[in-house]
Amino acid sequence: MKRNQYVVVGLGRFGSSISKELMKLGHEVLGIDLDEEVVNDMSAFLTHAVVADATDEDVLKSLGVRNFDCAVIAIGDDIQSSILTAIVLKELGVGQVVAKALSELHGKVLTKLGVDRVVYPERDMGIRVAHQLATPNLLDYIEISKDYTIVELSVPKRLCGFTIKELDPRAKFGCSVVAINKDSGIIIAPSANDVVNEKDVMVIIGTNAQIDEFESEVIG
Amino acid sequence: MKRNQYVVVGLGRFGSSISKELMKLGHEVLGIDLDEEVVNDMSAFLTHAVVADATDEDVLKSLGVRNFDCAVIAIGDDIQSSILTAIVLKELGVGQVVAKALSELHGKVLTKLGVDRVVYPERDMGIRVAHQLATPNLLDYIEISKDYTIVELSVPKRLCGFTIKELDPRAKFGCSVVAINKDSGIIIAPSANDVVNEKDVMVIIGTNAQIDEFESEVIG
Amino acid sequence: MKRNQYVVVGLGRFGSSISKELMKLGHEVLGIDLDEEVVNDMSAFLTHAVVADATDEDVLKSLGVRNFDCAVIAIGDDIQSSILTAIVLKELGVGQVVAKALSELHGKVLTKLGVDRVVYPERDMGIRVAHQLATPNLLDYIEISKDYTIVELSVPKRLCGFTIKELDPRAKFGCSVVAINKDSGIIIAPSANDVVNEKDVMVIIGTNAQIDEFESEVIG
Amino acid sequence: MKRNQYVVVGLGRFGSSISKELMKLGHEVLGIDLDEEVVNDMSAFLTHAVVADATDEDVLKSLGVRNFDCAVIAIGDDIQSSILTAIVLKELGVGQVVAKALSELHGKVLTKLGVDRVVYPERDMGIRVAHQLATPNLLDYIEISKDYTIVELSVPKRLCGFTIKELDPRAKFGCSVVAINKDSGIIIAPSANDVVNEKDVMVIIGTNAQIDEFESEVIG
Amino acid sequence: MKRNQYVVVGLGRFGSSISKELMKLGHEVLGIDLDEEVVNDMSAFLTHAVVADATDEDVLKSLGVRNFDCAVIAIGDDIQSSILTAIVLKELGVGQVVAKALSELHGKVLTKLGVDRVVYPERDMGIRVAHQLATPNLLDYIEISKDYTIVELSVPKRLCGFTIKELDPRAKFGCSVVAINKDSGIIIAPSANDVVNEKDVMVIIGTNAQIDEFESEVIG
Amino acid sequence: MKRNQYVVVGLGRFGSSISKELMKLGHEVLGIDLDEEVVNDMSAFLTHAVVADATDEDVLKSLGVRNFDCAVIAIGDDIQSSILTAIVLKELGVGQVVAKALSELHGKVLTKLGVDRVVYPERDMGIRVAHQLATPNLLDYIEISKDYTIVELSVPKRLCGFTIKELDPRAKFGCSVVAINKDSGIIIAPSANDVVNEKDVMVIIGTNAQIDEFESEVIG
Amino acid sequence: MKRNQYVVVGLGRFGSSISKELMKLGHEVLGIDLDEEVVNDMSAFLTHAVVADATDEDVLKSLGVRNFDCAVIAIGDDIQSSILTAIVLKELGVGQVVAKALSELHGKVLTKLGVDRVVYPERDMGIRVAHQLATPNLLDYIEISKDYTIVELSVPKRLCGFTIKELDPRAKFGCSVVAINKDSGIIIAPSANDVVNEKDVMVIIGTNAQIDEFESEVIG
Amino acid sequence: MKRNQYVVVGLGRFGSSISKELMKLGHEVLGIDLDEEVVNDMSAFLTHAVVADATDEDVLKSLGVRNFDCAVIAIGDDIQSSILTAIVLKELGVGQVVAKALSELHGKVLTKLGVDRVVYPERDMGIRVAHQLATPNLLDYIEISKDYTIVELSVPKRLCGFTIKELDPRAKFGCSVVAINKDSGIIIAPSANDVVNEKDVMVIIGTNAQIDEFESEVIG
Repeated sequence: MKRNQYVVVGLGRFGSSISKELMKLGHEVLGIDLDEEVVNDMSAFLTHAVVADATDEDVLKSLGVRNFDCAVIAIGDDIQSSILTAIVLKELGVGQVVAKALSELHGKVLTKLGVDRVVYPERDMGIRVAHQLATPNLLDYIEISKDYTIVELSVPKRLCGFTIKELDPRAKFGCSVVAINKDSGIIIAPSANDVVNEKDVMVIIGTNAQIDEFESEVIG
Repeated sequence: MKRNQYVVVGLGRFGSSISKELMKLGHEVLGIDLDEEVVNDMSAFLTHAVVADATDEDVLKSLGVRNFDCAVIAIGDDIQSSILTAIVLKELGVGQVVAKALSELHGKVLTKLGVDRVVYPERDMGIRVAHQLATPNLLDYIEISKDYTIVELSVPKRLCGFTIKELDPRAKFGCSVVAINKDSGIIIAPSANDVVNEKDVMVIIGTNAQIDEFESEVIG
Repeated sequence: MKRNQYVVVGLGRFGSSISKELMKLGHEVLGIDLDEEVVNDMSAFLTHAVVADATDEDVLKSLGVRNFDCAVIAIGDDIQSSILTAIVLKELGVGQVVAKALSELHGKVLTKLGVDRVVYPERDMGIRVAHQLATPNLLDYIEISKDYTIVELSVPKRLCGFTIKELDPRAKFGCSVVAINKDSGIIIAPSANDVVNEKDVMVIIGTNAQIDEFESEVIG
Repeated sequence: MKRNQYVVVGLGRFGSSISKELMKLGHEVLGIDLDEEVVNDMSAFLTHAVVADATDEDVLKSLGVRNFDCAVIAIGDDIQSSILTAIVLKELGVGQVVAKALSELHGKVLTKLGVDRVVYPERDMGIRVAHQLATPNLLDYIEISKDYTIVELSVPKRLCGFTIKELDPRAKFGCSVVAINKDSGIIIAPSANDVVNEKDVMVIIGTNAQIDEFESEVIG
Repeated sequence: MKRNQYVVVGLGRFGSSISKELMKLGHEVLGIDLDEEVVNDMSAFLTHAVVADATDEDVLKSLGVRNFDCAVIAIGDDIQSSILTAIVLKELGVGQVVAKALSELHGKVLTKLGVDRVVYPERDMGIRVAHQLATPNLLDYIEISKDYTIVELSVPKRLCGFTIKELDPRAKFGCSVVAINKDSGIIIAPSANDVVNEKDVMVIIGTNAQIDEFESEVIG
Repeated sequence: MKRNQYVVVGLGRFGSSISKELMKLGHEVLGIDLDEEVVNDMSAFLTHAVVADATDEDVLKSLGVRNFDCAVIAIGDDIQSSILTAIVLKELGVGQVVAKALSELHGKVLTKLGVDRVVYPERDMGIRVAHQLATPNLLDYIEISKDYTIVELSVPKRLCGFTIKELDPRAKFGCSVVAINKDSGIIIAPSANDVVNEKDVMVIIGTNAQIDEFESEVIG
Repeated sequence: MKRNQYVVVGLGRFGSSISKELMKLGHEVLGIDLDEEVVNDMSAFLTHAVVADATDEDVLKSLGVRNFDCAVIAIGDDIQSSILTAIVLKELGVGQVVAKALSELHGKVLTKLGVDRVVYPERDMGIRVAHQLATPNLLDYIEISKDYTIVELSVPKRLCGFTIKELDPRAKFGCSVVAINKDSGIIIAPSANDVVNEKDVMVIIGTNAQIDEFESEVIG
Repeated sequence: MKRNQYVVVGLGRFGSSISKELMKLGHEVLGIDLDEEVVNDMSAFLTHAVVADATDEDVLKSLGVRNFDCAVIAIGDDIQSSILTAIVLKELGVGQVVAKALSELHGKVLTKLGVDRVVYPERDMGIRVAHQLATPNLLDYIEISKDYTIVELSVPKRLCGFTIKELDPRAKFGCSVVAINKDSGIIIAPSANDVVNEKDVMVIIGTNAQIDEFESEVIG
C-alpha cells in the first residue's frame, strides 16, 4: 500500500476523527489548528501537529504543504477561514482538496473555488441515523443506485432456526441474501439450507421496495 | 409501514437532517429548538415545529411528548442542556431515546442516564471519510464483521471492457463481485462474461485484506 | 477516631466551609478549584489545595483521588462541570460521592449517575432560617419525625424566675423539657423545681402542635 | 398564631426557599426580585411577588414595606445591592431586617448599618454537612452549648435487638437517650427495656466527648 | 443616456458614496443593508432602500435583483458575507457584479467566484493620496500607460505672469500643456502667448520622468 | 528630488497603502500603529515602524516626529484617537498634517483643529467607481473644472480601424482627442489619419455634456 | 433678573447638579441625555428634558437650541461625543458654550474648537478638598490673586470668649477679619471688642503666608 | 506647619487632583489604585504609589495605613469597593476618613459606617459652575451663611474709571466692598476715592438679595 501524506486543517471532532483513522490506515497526517490545547492533545496521535493559521499562505508553504497528497479542511464553524484556506491550498497546488461544508451555500462557494470534494458530515450522518431509527433492525446500508440498496439486518428472535429456503426472500420479495454474518463466521452467498439464528446479521441486496417489504413483513 | 412519531430536540445541521429524512421516510416529526428563526425555517418541512426549552418537563408534557415512539436529542454544543433533556425525556417515559454525544465523557453520562443509543456523528463520519480518502475509488462500504467488508468501487478507465472472468477477483484475491451498477441497470451476481465499463460501480464482498489487495493491484 | 481523606471539588463559600470544618474535625482534605487565587487563599487551611479541572479523569487519577474515602462536589453554578465531575468520580470508584445540587432536575441527574448523597444547601438553610424567623425565640431545631421536633427556645424576660412546675409544659401542652442551658451549665432532664431565667435556653421535645401552642402561649 | 408579614428581597435558591417555607408556616410573604421570569415562577407560591429594584426607596414605600414585620435580604451575589437595600430598609423603619452575607467583610458592613441578624447560609450549611460526613450515622444535631450537643443517630444493623440497658450510654459514656424514633412511633425518655432496631433513630444528649465516644465505639 | 438599475449591498461610507453618485448620474439604485438606521438615513437619497440579508438567495429573488444591470458588493468588514453574497448574485445571473475586497486573498476568492470586477478603494485612494503628498502642487492625475501620465498641477505664485513660451515645457522637458484652467474659463491646447497666473491649473501630458523634472524644476 | 520624511499614524488598508506608495516614490516613512502584528507586517516595507499610542505627546516627541515634513492620520474607525492625534501633531508643530475623516462632522472638527488637508477616501473612491460603472468604457478621469473633464475611454471592437477624422469628435461633439494609448506606444495630439483599434485607449478633453454625448453615441 | 435659557447636554452627576441649581436660580433649563431613565428622573426638575443625541445637528436644530443663551456640555466619559457636540453647538451659533474636560488634551481640543469656557470639575474639587483637609478649620476660600486669599475659618473651642483685639490678626499677622458669622447673625467688619465663640466662623483676608501663620499659630 | 500623612485610595481625576495638591501643600501622600498604569503615571508626583486592592485589610495593614493621619476614598464608580474600603479603614482605626459619594444613598451608607466626611465633588462643582454661569461677572464666591455671601466680581468696561463713592454699593444696595484686586496689587477695604478699572476684580460682602441687585443693576 502506498503511504500517503495528508494535511488536516481543523482538529475538532470531525477533523480529529479523520486524522486518527488515516493514521490507523497507515498514512501520515499533519494536523493544523489554531488552538494550542487541541494541538497538544492530538500530537500524540499524529505524525505531526502544529499551531498555525491555515489562511496564511506563507505558513502553509513553510510547512511544505504543497507536496502533500491531499488536504482536508475540517474547520468547525468559521466559514470565512474555511473559504480562505481553500483558496490558499488550491493556489499552492495541493493534489486533492477535500472540505467540510456547513451549508449548501458554503458548499457551492467551495466547489467554485475548485475544491475537489465537499462533504456534509452532519447532514449525511443525520440521513444515516434516520434510516436506522426508521428500521430498527437496520444496522447499516449502502445505496448502490437510486433504486437498489444493500442492507445489513439483524435477525430477530422470532426467526431463530429458519432456513434461507423458509424465509425465501428472493421468491417472495425479489431480493437476495448476499451473506450471513454468524458468530461462527461469515457465509457468503448462503445456500437454501443455511439456518439463521438470533443475533445473526443478514446482508440483503434488492430494490428499496423489495427490501422494505421483506423487512416489514419478515424481520420487523 | 407503521407511521412512527418522532420528536427531535435541536434542529441544527444534524437534527434538521434527521428530521427531514424521517419525514421523507413517511414518519411524523415534531421539531423543537430554542431559536425562533431555526424553527420558522424548519416548520415547512416537519409535521410540527415549536420554539421550546426541552429541559422544562412541563413544556414537554404539554407537547404530549410522552406518547412519542422515539426522541432524538440532537443538541449542538450545550452538554448541560443535552443531559437535562435526556433525564426529562426518560422521566416522561418516552419509548426510545437517542442522543448525540460530543465527547466520550458526555456519552458515558448519557448512557448512565438510560439513553438507549448514543451517536457520535462527527467521529463516525470522520472515519467514513478517512476510508474514502485512503481508497480513492471507494464510494461507500459496510463493515459486516471485524474482518469482512462490502465495498462499492468505481471502475477506472483502464479496466474498461474487461469481463469479470478477466478480472477474476475470486480466483486471484478471494473476494466476490456481488453486483455491478451500470447506467443501464444493476446486474446482481454477475456472470463471468459480464463486462465492466468506466464509471460502472462494482460491489465486492471479501476480507479486508482481499479487498485491499484487489483494490491496490487491479483498481487503484 | 479514624482520620478520613476527603477531596472537595469547588472551594467557594460552601466548599470552603465544608473543607475547613472537616479539617477542624481532624480529617485530611484535598481541595480542588479552577481559580488560582481561591486555591492560594485556601492552601493555608487544607492538607493540600490544587488548581485543577476535576472533569479531567487523568488529572484526578494523578492526584490519587480514587483512594479517598469521600468526594464532595461543591461546584458553584456550573451544572455541566458538576455532572461531568460526578461521572468521573464514580468511574474512578471513589467510596462515597456527595454533591451539591442547584435544582431538583440537577439533583435527579446526580442521583441517576450514582451520587450517594445530594445536598441543597441554600434550600435547606432557607427552610431553617424561615423557622427561626417565624418563631423569634427559636434558636435551632431537629425534626425527629414528621410530627415530633426538638426545639431550642430562649427564655424571654417575662418568664424570669418561673419554675418548670409553674410553666408545666407537659401537663398543659404535652411536651417535655429535655434540658435547660444556663450560664452556670446545663441541666439535663430538669426537675420540677428548677428555675428558668432570662437568656436561659430550654430544649423541648414534643409534637409540632404541642410546641407551637407552648411557644405561642408561654414563650412568644 | 400570629400571621406575620414578611418581605423577601431576592428570590434565588435561598430567598425562594425561605419564602415558600414562611408561606407553609402560615405567614404572608411579599417577594421582590429584579428578574421577571423569577417573579413569575414564584408568584404562584407567595401572597404577592413583584419585579422591583429594592435599592429604590420610593419603590419600597409604594409597596408599603415599612409596615412589614420583617424584611429578609436574600440577594445572591451583588454586595452593593445588598448594602443599599439594607440602608433603605433601615431608613424606612422596618421592624426587623435579616440579611444574607457573602463574606465576613460584607457581614460587618451589614451589622454596622443596623441589620438585626446576618446569616451565612453556605458557610453554615457547609459546617452542618461536614459534621454529617465525618459521622456517617449522624442525621442532624443541635449545639446546645459550647460543650453539649443533641444528636440524632441512625441505629446500625449490628445493634438490632439491643435494649437501652444493654447499650447503656449513660453508664458507659455519660450521655442520655432522649428519644427513639421508630416506625411505630416515637418513644420519649425510653426505659431500660426498650429495644432498638435497624433504621430506628436515637436522639442522644451529652457532651461532645461523650457522644463522640458513644458514636465511635457503639454506633460507628 | 440609458437609465441603468444598480443594486448596492452595504451602505457604509463606500457603498453610500457610490449609491448617491449613481443617483446623481441619473440611474436607479436599490440599496441593501442589515442596519435599519443606515437604511432609513439612505432612503431619502435612493430609488429604494431595504433592510435585508443579501446572503439569502430568496430575499434577493423577492427583490427582483436578477433583473438588475449591475450589483455592487460594498460590504464593510465582513469577508464571509461578501463572499456568500457574491456567489448568490452570480447564481441569480446578475449581469455585472462588482465587489470591494479587503485584502489580496479576499480579492482572489471573489475573482474565482466569477466577480467581474474587484476594487480596493482604500488601497487605491492611498496610492492617489501618496502621489498628491509627494508632489504638493499635484491636484489629480491619470496614469495613461506604464510610462505616460496626465497631471493637473496648480501654478505657484512664483510663476505668475509667465507665458507658455517662457515656461516652454515641451522644449525643455518634453511634456506638453494640454489645457489651462483659469477663473475665466478653460483654454484647451493653449498657445505660446497664453499667460498663467497664481491658482491657475495646468494640465500636462508626458512621461513620468518628464513631468517629474518639469514639476521639480519649474513648479515645485 | 527631495527625499521627504513622512509619519503615518494608523497602518490599516488606507495607511499601509499610502506608506508603501510613499516608499516607492523614494521617501522615508515612519509608520505608527497600536497593533503589534500590523507593525511587524509593515516593518519590512517602511523605513521604520513602531507600536505606539499617537495620542501621547511624549511618545511622539521621543520619536522625533516634530521634525517630519508631513504627518498622515490614517486611523481606521476611532474618531476620538484621530482628533486627539491631530491636536498633538499640531501642538508639536509638524509642517503639514493630513487626516482621513470618517464623516462630515469629523472633517469639520479636524479642519477647526488646524489640520491642513482632510481626505475622505471611501467617499471619493465611491464617486470614482460610480462614474466607471455608469460609463463602462471609462477607465479613469480628472475633473478639471466644474464643467470640463479629461476622460480615458477604451475603444470598443466596433470602432476598430476608424481614423480620428472619421470619428471626428471635435466637429461632431466639440471635444478633442488629447492622446491615444496603443500597444505600440502613445500618440500625443493624434493627427486626423491616426487609426484606433480595439483595446486602444483614447484620452479626450471636453465639457461633461460633450463627452457624454460622444461616449453614448460613438463609444458606448 | 433676566431669565436665561440654558441647554445642558449630559445629565450625570455634574450635569444634573448644574441643571437643578440653574433652575433654583430662576432660569430655564433644557436637559438632554441619551439615557431614557436619566431623562425621566430629571424631567420633574427641569423646564424640559429630552432623550436625544446631541451630536446630531438636526436634532439640536429641531429643539431650537440655537436660540439658547448658553449651552453646557457635561458629558460624562465620552470624549468623542463631547467634541462632536461642541462643534455642532458652535456651528449652530449658540451664544456661549461651556464644556467639562476630562483631561488637559481634551481641554485643548475644546478650546481650539471655540468652546468659551472649559471646566475641570473633579480636578478643581480635588484641589478645594485638599486645602480643606490640610487646614482642618478651613471651611471655604477664594483665591483673589496669586498671593491674596479670603478664607472662612471655624473658631476652635480653645478660642471661645476671645475678642478680636485679643486675637489681633492684623497686628500680629497682617491679615484682617472681614466678618464673623455667629448663630445670632453676621457681623461685617467686626470691631475690636467683638467676641468669638466656638462654632463661630471668621472670614479673614490676607496673603497666603499671613493666613497660614494665623491659622497654624492661633486657630489650628 | 505639621507635615501630615495622607493615603488616597483611587487615583482617578478627583483622587489624583487631591493627591497632587496635598503634595504641593507640603504633605506626604501614599496613593493606591488597582490600575498599574495609573499608579506608574502618578508615582512621579507622590511620596509613594502602589498597585493594591484597598478592600483587603491585610494589604492596608502591610502598607502601615493605620498610622496615617487621614485617608481619602476617591474611588471612581465602584460603590461596593468604596463601602468595603471604608469599613476596612475604620476597622484599622485611621484618624480621619473622607470619602467621595456618588449618590445620596451612597453618602448615607458611608456616614453610617463612620466615615468622618462625605464629599460630592461633581454635585458641588455643578452648583458652583451654575452660579458662575448665571452671573457672568462672578468669578468665585463663598456662602458664609444662608443669607450672606462674599462674591468676586470682575469690573465691566462700562464702569471703568468710577470711584467707589460713585458706585456706592453700601448706600444704594447695602453691601460692602471688601477689596479690589488690581493689576498693581490688592486694595483691602478700599476708600471712597479708589477707582475701579476694566478687569479689576471687586470682592463684595452682603446678603444674596443685595448682591443680586448690585450685580444686575451696576455690574451685569
